[in-house]
Order: sequence, then structure tokens, then C-alpha cells
Amino acid sequence: MTTQTPAAPIAKGLEGVIAGETAICKVEQDALIYRGYEIADLAANASFEEVAYLLLVGHKPSAGELKAFEDELKADRDIPAMMHDKLREGAKLITDGAAVPMDVLRTGVSVLAHMDADCQDNSADANLRKSKRLLAKIPTIIGHMQNAIDGRDFVEPDSSLSHAANLLWMMTGEKPSAEAVKVMDVSLVLYAEHDYNASTFTCRVIASTLADLHGAVCGGIAALKGPLHGGANEAAMEMLSEIRKDIGPKNDAAKINAWMQQAFADKRKLMGFGHRVYKNGDHRAPILHALGRKAAEARSDEYVKLFELGEAVQNIMETQKHIFPNVDFPCGMTYFTMGIPVPQYTPIFVASRITGWCAHIMEQHANNRIIRPRVSYTGPDLQKWNG
Amino acid sequence: MTTQTPAAPIAKGLEGVIAGETAICKVEQDALIYRGYEIADLAANASFEEVAYLLLVGHKPSAGELKAFEDELKADRDIPAMMHDKLREGAKLITDGAAVPMDVLRTGVSVLAHMDADCQDNSADANLRKSKRLLAKIPTIIGHMQNAIDGRDFVEPDSSLSHAANLLWMMTGEKPSAEAVKVMDVSLVLYAEHDYNASTFTCRVIASTLADLHGAVCGGIAALKGPLHGGANEAAMEMLSEIRKDIGPKNDAAKINAWMQQAFADKRKLMGFGHRVYKNGDHRAPILHALGRKAAEARSDEYVKLFELGEAVQNIMETQKHIFPNVDFPCGMTYFTMGIPVPQYTPIFVASRITGWCAHIMEQHANNRIIRPRVSYTGPDLQKWNG
Repeated sequence: MTTQTPAAPIAKGLEGVIAGETAICKVEQDALIYRGYEIADLAANASFEEVAYLLLVGHKPSAGELKAFEDELKADRDIPAMMHDKLREGAKLITDGAAVPMDVLRTGVSVLAHMDADCQDNSADANLRKSKRLLAKIPTIIGHMQNAIDGRDFVEPDSSLSHAANLLWMMTGEKPSAEAVKVMDVSLVLYAEHDYNASTFTCRVIASTLADLHGAVCGGIAALKGPLHGGANEAAMEMLSEIRKDIGPKNDAAKINAWMQQAFADKRKLMGFGHRVYKNGDHRAPILHALGRKAAEARSDEYVKLFELGEAVQNIMETQKHIFPNVDFPCGMTYFTMGIPVPQYTPIFVASRITGWCAHIMEQHANNRIIRPRVSYTGPDLQKWNG
Repeated sequence: MTTQTPAAPIAKGLEGVIAGETAICKVEQDALIYRGYEIADLAANASFEEVAYLLLVGHKPSAGELKAFEDELKADRDIPAMMHDKLREGAKLITDGAAVPMDVLRTGVSVLAHMDADCQDNSADANLRKSKRLLAKIPTIIGHMQNAIDGRDFVEPDSSLSHAANLLWMMTGEKPSAEAVKVMDVSLVLYAEHDYNASTFTCRVIASTLADLHGAVCGGIAALKGPLHGGANEAAMEMLSEIRKDIGPKNDAAKINAWMQQAFADKRKLMGFGHRVYKNGDHRAPILHALGRKAAEARSDEYVKLFELGEAVQNIMETQKHIFPNVDFPCGMTYFTMGIPVPQYTPIFVASRITGWCAHIMEQHANNRIIRPRVSYTGPDLQKWNG
């Protein structure tokens, strides 16, 4: 085996490597900051649209800027009619079992590229226009897809509703309660941005070749799907459902503990726990947990019991493994409480993170250097093909 | 402005960072090696199918293994009929000017995912099956797309033809000459793999979240499109056409030099030159240049004049800027000589690099760690939203 002598140590997973600079987000043990504002402050005081503007444009909007931005988004929610049949076909493939909503959403964004007159234009203005259009249209793709899966007619976007409220409306055809809208809005704020996470880094690597924004977003969606990343909110809820099935309807502490000990013995990876950066807990998790639990208490005992199960699991992870939940863990329980189908949890994450992705793509294009690392070769020694 | 103190220096573009290990490829100043075999040896002695097998399976195939592999690829070339209308729609959007073939190819692969029963299975066996299917079907997507653009009927795959020959056949409906097949085959060998280039690294970042192979390939296609990466083969030919238009039909040395000096003065980025790793020239470029020039000589003076223009440009870049052509520079002239439409040069690159991408995705899944770097924050200081 030939191994070249690398000029630097091997940074597997790029752990600890500072891959660049950003003015968009700071992810630290002690804080999560979007362009100067701390996440708890934003979750308490800013709407998702305000956060989206902050991330995409770069500053907190004035009242007039916010109104114009909200109006633009509302006006851009429709998707081309030729996509309607495609989404019905996609829904059928989901029902048949090969595809999942994240795949169909990726195709949907890829198709939107073909019909966007700005597609090949990487200028800052064109990128901002494309970002706003994707932000406006992604809930429509998700909503139409879910209605097709459920065998209902498509629900038209409602321009009287906010981004969060319209998303819930389009997925169900029912006007959501103010409480449900608040929970969704905060979850979108929490999910909007997280510096060089794997999907955002994917977007930046793609954009660094001077490829276009839609292509970079397709890569971001593909990366977010993974259960070690955005897919964890679905995987966390699936794990809780599995525990419930195994231990029965009661939250028996001994049974929960036995289930967890078996998972540890099996070296099973428990999704929704741990984080590359946060070693003492994810700033977003307690915010969403508190909101989701309140929603559960308002709904019924069944959902409170789900949160109690989650809390027991979390307690075992924290005390026995010193691993803390990330935001995906309470998100799974929260979206379940809201009645959202599990395979749409990660698409909803996209409906939020599209803001962070597009902000990073624009930042990459504005000050570009191609992202091209080296690698250490561990393959066979040199030999002749006809040797 | 708050700047955190990074634990490591900032590695913009990941220059010099060793992001992992691979047994697939070694890219060094002095050699380009695929799994132990040097690129000039492979270009001279191995078919593209042999190289594809080497990359995907891990060793040089025996005669029996090669035959079985070739038969599998030939049997898998058809794409689902429901994609036919979509490719015609895509071709119309290309003709209308919003989309380009790389975008439609990305959508095509994204749609293939929905119909692949192995899509959600990341096991080594399933990944290899999916890799072979994508390798077999991508030329069909390219061919159908090109025929739709040209207003011709689709050309069915021909199982008597090799990968390279079938690709040319499907794009044109004409049986290619042995010489054309040889040039295409060698170009596919040269393009098949290049360690952690930006598109392959994109595939690995996506796969590192434990996302699926099709999604990772969609990200790879998106990244390859960029003119700083695979898109350079199209951009290099477009530049030569622009020079031809500006200087007129003769290769006047003074006019070529004046054009280049103006480009230098304008700080114009000349595509197809330079490489992050190769500072003294790309091992692949002279191999393809020699083959392409021979094809030009066999075709007509017009194409020889194109190569002479390219050689003059290359000479100015080398002597005045000490920057050498990469493989995309001769590729542009070579594919032009073969009569291939310029916007299909990068899709043809995909028809080859799909092998390297899939090999890296399988290697990532086999020994995974999520790829998640850190970043240095340069944004505003902490402030209150309602401050």
C-alpha cells in the first residue's frame, strides 16, 4: 500500500477545520447567532419572514421593507401548472414506496430551475430574486405533494396567511389555529440557519464552481435528507414510535431503560442526539421542546405521554452517555403533535433552511474560491494494466 | 465586528487541507493514478468499461467479469417511458433559453431516483446496482435530450455498441466511425475520476449525512456544471469561438496575442487553464490534445486551424502566465471536431465521472463520518432584536 505523505494532518469529516468566513451565522458552545441576533431573542421576538429577510438581505427589515418582502413572497407562491401532474406522479411513487417526499421536493426544485428566467444568472440581484421565489414556492410543492398523497385536491395558497400559516393551510386544507401557527413559525426560525452544516456546506461547494443557485439548492436538499442531518427529525420520531410499540402504552421507566440499554448494547445510533459543535446541548432544543410540550398539553394526554417518553429517553442519554438532544429531537415530537405526516418533517426543514442556504450561496458567489480539498491515497501501488 | 479566534487557520477553498483518505485515486504533480494504474497506461490500454469496473468494483476485471459487466450495462440502458415526455419538455425549455442540458440531466437523474426500488438502500450491494444503472442510463438521457432539441425521434440504445459508441449513436442517430469511438472512449477514461475534485467532494459531503446515492449524484451534477469545474470544457470552446469571431478566419499571431493581452488587462478568467493541484500541467491534457488533433487532421483544415488557434492561446498562457491547460481545454476542441453540440460537453463529462462519483459515495458510506467543517464568524456584534 502506497501512502503519500500529506502536507497536513488528515481531517476526517473536516472536524476542527475552519473552512472559511461568514457574516451570516455564528455557531458556538455558548451561543447561536444569526447576523448579530441571538437565537432565543429571534424565537421570542421575530417572525420567520423577518428572520428570512435578515438572512437573505443582511439586516433587520424596517416595517416598509418587511411589508414589501411579505407581499413579494405571497405573490410568488404559485408554481407552474406543468408541475401539477408531475407532483401527482411523484405522490404516486411515494405511495408505491420507492420515493420519499424529500426526493420529490429535490426534483421539484430542479424543475423550477428550468422555468426560472434568472436561472443562469449568478449576479447578486438575480440570486436574491431566485432565493425569494424558492422561499415562496417550496411550501406549495410540499402542500400539493401532501394533498396528492392524501388523495385530495390541491389547496391554493392563501395570501392572507403568513409563511408558517400558509404552509399548514396548504398541507391540510384546514385553517390552522393561532397556536399551531406560532409553533410552526418558531420552528422555522430555529431551522433557518446554522453556518457550515453539511447541507449548507454542500451548497457552498457547488456554488464555488460558479454553478447556479438552483443546482446548489438541489444539492442542499439531497444532503439534508440524510438521517445524520435534517432527516434526524423524522428518524427521532420513528425511534419514539418504535419504543412505544415495544414497551406498550405506558411510560414504564424500567421498560424504557431496558430498551435504551439494548440500543446501547447494539451500538445503535440514536437519531436526534449529539452535534459536531454543541457538546453541552443545542440552544434550539429547549426552545422547541417547551413550545411543543405546551402544544401537546393543549391537545391531549396521548401527546403529553409522547413528550414524557421523549424526556425519559433524553434523560437516559444525558445522564448515561452525556449526549444531548439536538433540535431535531423535540422537532419530531412537536410536528407529530401538530398532526404532520412524518415524511414531511424534513421537507418542512427545507422550507426554512432555504433561507440560510441561499444566503450562503450568495455570500460564496460574492467572494469566491473553488472548494477543492486534497486527499490521502491509500490504494494499491503502481502497476501496469497489461503487467 | 466580532471575529472569533479560530482554533485553526482559515482554509479558504480548503486549499491544502487533507479531507480524508481514498483508495480510488491519487492526484499528484507527478502522476494521476486510478486504483494503482497510471492514467496514460489506462488511456492506451484499457476501455472505458474496464476503467468503470476498476473504479466501481475495485479491481481490474477478468475477461468474464468484464463481459458480465458490459452485458449488465447494455441491458440497463432504457429509461422509464414516463421520462420521455419530460425530456421533450426539458428540450423545449432548453430551446426557449432558460434551461441548459446540465440542468435537465440533473432533473433526469433526480427522477430516476423515484423509480429505483433500491433508492433508499445505502448498502454496498444496492449502491453498486444503482451505480451501474445510472452509468447505463445517463447516455440515454443525454441522447434523448439532444434528439428532442434537434427535433428528431429518439434513438434507441444499441446493445451491439460499447458505452462510448452507443453514446455517440444515441446523440446523432448515426453509427460513429471507429476513430470517433476511440476518441470518445479515451476522453471518458480521462474524465472518469479525479479524487476530491469539487463535484466528487460534493457527492461525499451529501453521502456523509447517510443520504442516498441518487441525491449525492444530483449534487455532483450541479457542481460539475460550474465553469470553474466541468463547465470549463464548454467555456473553453466558447472562448475559442469568441477569439475566432474577433480575429477573423486566419490564425494571425499578432491578433491572437493582442486578444490575449486584452483578456489579461481585463483580468478575465480564461477557462480550461490552471488547476488547484497540477501546477506544471495536467497529465490528461496532452493525451486528449494529441488524439483530438489527429481527429481534426482526419476531418478538415477548419478543425486543424481550431487546434492551431488553441495551441497559440496555450503557448501564450504557458510562456507569459506560466499557467497550463487542464483536460477541459483540449476536450472543448476535440468534442467540437467530433461535431458534438457545445452544451452537451459537460453532460458527456457526467457520463464518465458518474463512475468516480459512485465509487466515492460507496467508499464514504462504507467508512462514514459526517463532513461538517467550522467557519469563522465575521458578522455584526451581538445586539437585541427590539433594542
